[in-house]
Amino acid sequence: MKLLHTADWHIGRTLNGYSLLDEQKHAFSQMLQIALDEKVDGIVIAGDIYDRGVPSSEAVIALDEMLRKINLENKIPIYAISGNHDSAKRLNYGREWMEYTDFHLNTLLEEAFTPIETSDTQIFLLPFFDPMDARVYYQKQGMDPQKITNIKTIGEAMSLVISDMTKLFDKNKKHLLITHFAVSPNKDTEIDLTSETNSKVGGLATLTTNQFKDFDYVMLGHIHTKFASPSETIRYSGSLVKFNVKEANTEKSIDIVDTNDDPISFVHHKITPHTDLIVLKETWETLLDPEFYSKQPIGKNWFAITIEDFKRSEHTQTNVRSQLQDIYGTVVELDYKNVEVSNNQSIEQTIDSTNHEGIVEQFYTSITGDTLSKSQKGIVNEIFTELGKEE
Amino acid sequence: MKLLHTADWHIGRTLNGYSLLDEQKHAFSQMLQIALDEKVDGIVIAGDIYDRGVPSSEAVIALDEMLRKINLENKIPIYAISGNHDSAKRLNYGREWMEYTDFHLNTLLEEAFTPIETSDTQIFLLPFFDPMDARVYYQKQGMDPQKITNIKTIGEAMSLVISDMTKLFDKNKKHLLITHFAVSPNKDTEIDLTSETNSKVGGLATLTTNQFKDFDYVMLGHIHTKFASPSETIRYSGSLVKFNVKEANTEKSIDIVDTNDDPISFVHHKITPHTDLIVLKETWETLLDPEFYSKQPIGKNWFAITIEDFKRSEHTQTNVRSQLQDIYGTVVELDYKNVEVSNNQSIEQTIDSTNHEGIVEQFYTSITGDTLSKSQKGIVNEIFTELGKEE
Repeated sequence: MKLLHTADWHIGRTLNGYSLLDEQKHAFSQMLQIALDEKVDGIVIAGDIYDRGVPSSEAVIALDEMLRKINLENKIPIYAISGNHDSAKRLNYGREWMEYTDFHLNTLLEEAFTPIETSDTQIFLLPFFDPMDARVYYQKQGMDPQKITNIKTIGEAMSLVISDMTKLFDKNKKHLLITHFAVSPNKDTEIDLTSETNSKVGGLATLTTNQFKDFDYVMLGHIHTKFASPSETIRYSGSLVKFNVKEANTEKSIDIVDTNDDPISFVHHKITPHTDLIVLKETWETLLDPEFYSKQPIGKNWFAITIEDFKRSEHTQTNVRSQLQDIYGTVVELDYKNVEVSNNQSIEQTIDSTNHEGIVEQFYTSITGDTLSKSQKGIVNEIFTELGKEE
Repeated sequence: MKLLHTADWHIGRTLNGYSLLDEQKHAFSQMLQIALDEKVDGIVIAGDIYDRGVPSSEAVIALDEMLRKINLENKIPIYAISGNHDSAKRLNYGREWMEYTDFHLNTLLEEAFTPIETSDTQIFLLPFFDPMDARVYYQKQGMDPQKITNIKTIGEAMSLVISDMTKLFDKNKKHLLITHFAVSPNKDTEIDLTSETNSKVGGLATLTTNQFKDFDYVMLGHIHTKFASPSETIRYSGSLVKFNVKEANTEKSIDIVDTNDDPISFVHHKITPHTDLIVLKETWETLLDPEFYSKQPIGKNWFAITIEDFKRSEHTQTNVRSQLQDIYGTVVELDYKNVEVSNNQSIEQTIDSTNHEGIVEQFYTSITGDTLSKSQKGIVNEIFTELGKEE
């Protein structure tokens, strides 16, 4: 079968207060067109469908419309799971009605052990879960309490879950897994799962590819770029839209996955932004130079601008933003690097996380362009001394 | 056809912090059993399905299970609308999938003009809406702007809506309307709809029965008791559960409506509380008298107790509640009447709303059983003087 793999829609997300909904709708339309052109047998949404557990009513309406277009208007099956950003309980509402039109949505661990069966494939929909969910589930299954106590990490929980899934394998079919976790490249770089410090990426404990070796293909959500995919058959599709400056220069896409190939293959299809996110790091002089800005994609795009070697003393905060907006349009992010403050000291933005007073001072300077006065420094010191006592 | 009429489920509601969910599930089970025994052709839920626009995840799960039991497990069609307590936008999620199994849910005015057609009946599902919703709707319909400006009251909006509905009438069928408003008995008691003061009951402008004369039967939600029904064919089913002390002594029920009768008839079917709400208004001595309390339905019930002619000086606040709970179990509401305070003055609970200081004084006395001291009175006066200046 031919599946379209996407994930991390984060419907309802904003970028510094700017709504991404129009951009998300635009990306969705492209994705749907690819699905139709490629005549896919289904669209996989691998979690983080909403950005928040309780999304705005606008986000609810937008998602309903997208799902309706796929599943009811165009009769394309959906294979979806909830991610860590979704409320598993809330997103569960109505799922049994949706089954009638081949819209399969799992949000609870207990739902993951009934694979969707097609003529040649078993599709396992495993929503995001944590070790506590696994303990509750296995307790209900009547597992030995001592064994339940041993489920401490997501790695241990995942081993049990996958072991139970493989028992359901039909040997005449291929086996797909759709899930939502951070998975690291391979056994060699395996991370000590018992270590709190090392095992977390993006707030989630990391799993390794070897845990998923029984599946022919794994479609992941959670990390927003396809370049983080840990292997050729364990893949992130990435998000449809750029959510922040870090994602500004990475291409967004979806994968068309053909399960008839051996091994199962994928092809990227690019999603082109309508309103792109353009990052500029230049001096004030360059930014205001017509020679420079006439070459920038000014118009409908959003700009995230870092001003280098900025002479704070020559500007007011409001002037800077409004002058830039006059030229570039919407400036969604404004930052300063190597600010030259009033007393001619250039502050490097390297932060020593053990020096609390230093962090406050740098923050104050980067926001106001000024340094802390002697009495202000005294207050900051006093507060940290008090806080230190409480520890 | 035979329909079960219920309304105002208010799933997720609490009574002074005590969850009503178990009681709501118990009432639901009885309702479902009646529907099965009576072999109804559908269950009507006339709005206020949830208690809040953003219900708790427990409420979402509970409602999903109830709707599933009716519609998927027992294959009974559902005809439902949103009420003023529901979020029309949120509750709209998934409704088009639900249509596939004859679960009809309207939450937006624009959805009300497509009646559900059965062999002999047209069912119009008109969710709660306000004059602004009507103005937006008729603007989209291309109505003359001057006419739109004239839609000021719910009465004016309703006249337009019903007039549009009657244009869709099939003369060979009966016409049912399901909606969620306060409707007053008849033309004689019609209230001036242009008057802000008179036109609101329960926060909603009141409509009159004559507006609905073209329908063979109207199933209403909004008012929690069937005794508020304005006519024999324009009926409130009332809620399934007692929500507060005012509802404690009214019987809860659902209606079985037979549309084959002429005129259409209804029969009440009682819903028996599992945990009933018992209201007692007695003196302290009576309440603590074994002769009295041994005759009360103590056990699983909830008690709302008003202590009459209470001698505050002889008790502490905590003692009163704990002594009563020792005898009666869960006391969900505790009130005092004619409290005899320390200086032997009996305070009547009549409140002059223009005397702010008096209100505070009475509140203080009814809670603490004590009067305000001279210095406390001074503070209260000072605060109101300050507040007065701000106005």
